[in-house]
Order: sequence, then structure tokens, then C-alpha cells
Amino acid sequence: MPEAPFVPVVPAGGSGTRLWPLSRRDRPKFLLDPTGRGRSLLQQTLDRLAPLADRAPIVVTGRAHARAVREQLDADGQAPAAGPGAEHGAVRVLSEPSARDSMPAIALAAAVVEREAPDAVIGSFAADHLIEDQAAFARAVTAARNAAELGLLVTLGITPDSPSTAFGYLRAAEDPADGDLAVGLRAVGAQPVSAFVEKPDRERAEEFVAAGMRWNAGMFVVRAQVLLDELAVQIPSLSAGAREIAAARGTADEQEVLERVWPAMTAIAIDHALAEPLAARGRVAMVPAEFDWDDVGDFAALAGQLRRRQGRALRDDDGTEVHVVGSASVDALCSRATVYGATDRHIALVGLQGISIVDTEDALLVLADEQAQALQRLVGRLDAQGLDRLR
Amino acid sequence: MPEAPFVPVVPAGGSGTRLWPLSRRDRPKFLLDPTGRGRSLLQQTLDRLAPLADRAPIVVTGRAHARAVREQLDADGQAPAAGPGAEHGAVRVLSEPSARDSMPAIALAAAVVEREAPDAVIGSFAADHLIEDQAAFARAVTAARNAAELGLLVTLGITPDSPSTAFGYLRAAEDPADGDLAVGLRAVGAQPVSAFVEKPDRERAEEFVAAGMRWNAGMFVVRAQVLLDELAVQIPSLSAGAREIAAARGTADEQEVLERVWPAMTAIAIDHALAEPLAARGRVAMVPAEFDWDDVGDFAALAGQLRRRQGRALRDDDGTEVHVVGSASVDALCSRATVYGATDRHIALVGLQGISIVDTEDALLVLADEQAQALQRLVGRLDAQGLDRLR
Repeated sequence: MPEAPFVPVVPAGGSGTRLWPLSRRDRPKFLLDPTGRGRSLLQQTLDRLAPLADRAPIVVTGRAHARAVREQLDADGQAPAAGPGAEHGAVRVLSEPSARDSMPAIALAAAVVEREAPDAVIGSFAADHLIEDQAAFARAVTAARNAAELGLLVTLGITPDSPSTAFGYLRAAEDPADGDLAVGLRAVGAQPVSAFVEKPDRERAEEFVAAGMRWNAGMFVVRAQVLLDELAVQIPSLSAGAREIAAARGTADEQEVLERVWPAMTAIAIDHALAEPLAARGRVAMVPAEFDWDDVGDFAALAGQLRRRQGRALRDDDGTEVHVVGSASVDALCSRATVYGATDRHIALVGLQGISIVDTEDALLVLADEQAQALQRLVGRLDAQGLDRLR
Repeated sequence: MPEAPFVPVVPAGGSGTRLWPLSRRDRPKFLLDPTGRGRSLLQQTLDRLAPLADRAPIVVTGRAHARAVREQLDADGQAPAAGPGAEHGAVRVLSEPSARDSMPAIALAAAVVEREAPDAVIGSFAADHLIEDQAAFARAVTAARNAAELGLLVTLGITPDSPSTAFGYLRAAEDPADGDLAVGLRAVGAQPVSAFVEKPDRERAEEFVAAGMRWNAGMFVVRAQVLLDELAVQIPSLSAGAREIAAARGTADEQEVLERVWPAMTAIAIDHALAEPLAARGRVAMVPAEFDWDDVGDFAALAGQLRRRQGRALRDDDGTEVHVVGSASVDALCSRATVYGATDRHIALVGLQGISIVDTEDALLVLADEQAQALQRLVGRLDAQGLDRLR
């Protein structure tokens, strides 16, 4: 069993174009409850992590979303608290002055954790993914904590259910030359990773899946100190900046330091800043994730989730299977579709096959699921059409 | 050239389920402008008929729609008039106390015309069909008037553009035994009809089209007196009732007679009441209609109309062809679709093929054009869902 205290870290960002108009610039995916469970993706993420935490989980989010994040966490029965970084009952919220990608956000959380518990292990998990099997998730996190205590950066490797071109893959390595490390990894059920492979084309994806490679879902477990020390080697200013901001927290200089240091932090993802260089140096391990996982990357993925889950659905022997999220009244003939009804309009469907419909007060989307990825292009040109207000 | 005065009659009825939610119970198809021309189908019908009329055309409509009909006609620059049957400038509106199908409505109009011009020919045309070629329409009506002056019931036969199962067909007859009538018909370009054949199945429809048979579009031209006298043979109470109501018009008894006589009128279509028995007796002729014609029977037909007409459309070399009726802002990728946007919502489409979208304040329809006929079933079950208000 792991010995070091564990602190979950949840970077909550994202522009929200792939689930538009359900998600908007000021209502990103993690604040939504797209499958109608009664909990937002962020809340579900914290529900999953809180039981595993030895200290209060940390959510790192943009200033624009900090208030909404706090409101959702306060809705969980916690008393409201004032100011950035204030404790929200069982969850802490750090707000970023500006978007700097995932590395600065995670480094800042690591630096905060390092100050209060230098031996602590952090686990970083996206705020907007879906995982159902809580027990399997907990088992994988425990294995990853054990591996992280060996001083490695540990990632959870997802079993592919298709040769997806939407995710990066993890390339396994031979046993490390260090015999003790090799034994240690085997003992905790982890294996070394030699590379993070970028999103492949279809042909290579099929090769990867055939070879048993797993998806990189961006879940990292690592000692806070190891993360910051390794980062100090790769991008020293990032590590030093995070530690400087963390040191000033709770002092009179807190705000001044944050406003001075943060804008100079390099905007970069943790994969590029840390995971890839460490893998090349034999300092990354992977534990297999034996749980369901979905990043709900577009409406096709979401439709798939709704088909698999118990939810509100219309079914008829004319072939109708329509999943409904929201309170809209819906009727359908001969239709396979998904409806997100955010208004009180009645919605009638005839003869649809694989269509998603999102009905909101100011925007209506009708989309063929098989072309769900193209949605980003439509959202991208809203500005040019003078429809910036809809983003 | 025809000698008898000509009076157009426009029965304006229909429940409006096939273009729902564009059309509603209190906003039937004939009051709509579904192709975005700036004129309702009723207004377009009268635009087509007014130049051919020797006396003011007569619109016969239900009480529930009489006010909306008058408002549309008044919007054409006529001063408002009070009371049922009052003149609306160039158009008269007769309002029916209750729906009795087409025969009582046309008989009443015929009886009104007969009193003011006993030799007049009436022409009955639906209020909600689309015809573009005004000149060809006028030629066909003229030919039909000539044939009607021979004492026959004359129908306009539409050239099929497909073996449709949605329309009845006209079966041509041998030349009549009466040599003078045969010569007369030939002189005016008409031919005798032996039967009105009900909507066939697909196989028979193909036989009919191969044999050169034409569609029955329910357009009838006949002397008012002939219609009433022949009807007196078939359903005496209908003919007598229509004449009694017409005789009372403008008198103190008008309302009393209408309320007493109308409810006893047999509800029946002119096809069954008059056209079929007369065809069997050799008293029906047909003139070929060499104009385009569309009854806009469902959203598939309407989509076809919009594709053929000049209107607002989005086109892109990704295959996008989206026709838009209404003021909605619309953007699309890889989509062939039709949008009826009656709200100020922005509408985004991705990857749709042959889909119609009707966006109204209280109801949204998304329909595959190839299953457009099924819509009636959805509308039919609104009541059972407690959504009667949407009909």
C-alpha cells in the first residue's frame, strides 16, 4: 500500500467548441452534466477523487470560470469562501490569471502541495472525462501511487476499444537496467514507458492497437517534489515560478507575486514539458487502467455514452431509440437520435439516423454524429459572422 | 373564346398536419408562405385567379379561419368589411359554420353565383397549391371554360412527373356517342373522362403513367347551374340547401337560414358527390394542364420546390446546399437540408442529408424528407401527450 499522502489535482480548462452549443466559452464542458446524471463532469470527477485523497483536492481553473467552479462545489454543501485559492470545504480552487496550458497549472498545484507535505504524491486528472467504475479507478490510482513512490512519473494507460486517431499512445519499454527498479515496478503492477506517441493516422493506430499499446489519457501520478525537480531541469523558470507563487500564498505579497510571475510562465502541456523528455530518460511508468474511460470528445462520443447508460430514452419497435438529456418533451418516429433539450420547446423527430440535436435558447445544432469532429469549424467561424455572443 | 362570365371559387380548408409545426390548426397551409415568396398560398392563388375573373372570386372557409383570411385579403389594399360573406374589395369571403368537406362549400358558392348570373361558369381551385406558369394556367382555364359551356363538368388533368401514389388519376374515355359533343370537345382541346381512379398502389401508378393517364388535382370548371342541377339528382338536399342559403343572403333571415340548413348538409368531397357519378354517365371532360403544379403535400415536396426556385440558400463546395425560409441565421457544413426558421435562434447544421428543420417558438421538427408522410402520425398523437396546444 502507498505510504505518502495523496492529493488529487484537477486542471479544469478547455475552450468548449466540440460540444457547442451545449458548452460555451463561459460554460465549458467540465461545468456541464451532458449525460443527465445530475452532477457536472467536474463534480463527478471530484466525487471519484475525494475518497482517495489524504488532503483536500485542488482544482486549478481560469479566472473566468473560478466563480462557476466554486458555485458548483459550494452546491455540494460546502460553505462559500472568499478569494482565490480559498478552501471550499473538501476542495481547494486555485484560479489562474490567464490560460497557460496544463504544465503551469499542475506545477502550481504541485508547489502548493510540496510546501505542506514534501513527500506527497499528486495525481492529475482532467475535469471533464467520464469514468464509471469507481472501484477499478481506485485500484489503478493505488498502483500508480505505489509506482510514483519509486520516484517515477506514472501514467494510467487506457485499453483502446478502437484504433482511435483522437488519442496519443504509450509505447512500452524493456525492463529498466536498474534491477531494483525493475523488481519494484513489477511488484506494483507497473511497466516502463519509452515514449508518448502523438495521435497517429488510422493505419498506425491499427498497428498500435494490434501491438497492445494503450491510450495516453493525460492522467499523471507523481511525487510533487519529483515533478518540480524534474521540471527544474527541463524548464527552470516554470518550476521556480510555481514554487515562488506557492511560497507567497497566504502572505501579504500573494497577489503581487501571482500577477508578476504567472504571465511569464511558459504555456505548455505537461506531455511536452515533462512526460516526453522523462520517458526518453527511462523515468516514466504506466499502470494499466482496467476501467471504462471516455473523454466525451464530441457529440458522437456523447451519443455513445448515452446509449450505454441508463437514462431517459424513447424506444419503439419502428426502430426508434432516442436518448434525451434535459426536460424537453420529445416524440419520434423511426429515429435513432440524441436530444439535448435545454428549452421548453416540444421536439418532434421523423426518420433520423445517427443525429444529435441541441436545442438552446439562442442556438440550435443539428448534427450527423459521424461528422461530429467537423463542428469545431462551424464554431470557429461564428465570430466572422458577427455571432461572437454565441461562443 | 368563352362567352359565359367566369367566377373563381376557392375552398380554403384543411387541417394542416403535413406541414406541422409550420402549419397549425389555427394557421393552415393556405395562410402560410412556405416558399418565402412574400405572399401566402391563398394570396398567390387569388393573384393567379383574379385576372381571369369576370366577377369577384369567392373564398369559402371555416369560421375559425375567416378572420385570418380577411386580414390577408385586406392586406392586399382592400378596406376591411364586416360580417360573413361581405365583399373584400375584389374577393368575397363565405364562412362555413362547420367543416362539411368540399361539396357543400362549392355548392354554396355555385348557388351564390347562380343567383347573380344564371349562365355563369365557376372554377374551383384549392387555396394551397403552387403553380408558377400563369400564362399556361390561364390557357388551361380558358379551354376548361369552353368545355364547361358545353354543359359538362370539366377537370384539369396534371401531367405526372412521377408514378405518385399520393394522387388520384383520370381515366380517358372513347369519344362520346353524341357526335356534336365529340366535335365540340375536340374543338376546345378537351377529352372525355370515364372515371376518377382513387390513389393507386405503386405498381398501378406506374401502369397509369405509362398509359399516359393524368393526375386529378381537384380543379373543376362547370356552369353553376349545371353543378347544382346535377347535384340535385345525386344528393338533392345538398343542392336545395345551398340554394336556400344563397337565396337568404342579404335578407333578415340570412343567419337563421344558414344556422338551420348548414348543419344538415352532407359532408362529402366533390369527387365522390359529383365527379365520379358524372364521369360514369359520360358528363365529365378533361383539359390537359400544361403548367407546373404542386400541392405542397409534405416537407419533401416543399424541399423540392425550394430547390427549384430562386430563394435564400447556402451553397459550398463541401456539398452544402441549404435552403432557408425565414429570417433565421444559418450556417452549415457538408449538409443538404431545408430550414424554416421562425425564431431568432442561430441554426448550425453538420453532415445532414435530405433533412428538413422547422424551428418555431414552441415546437421544433427535425425530419428526414424521405419519410415526410409519416409526420401526420406524430401530429396525430400530440393530443394524447397533453400537447393539444401545439396542434
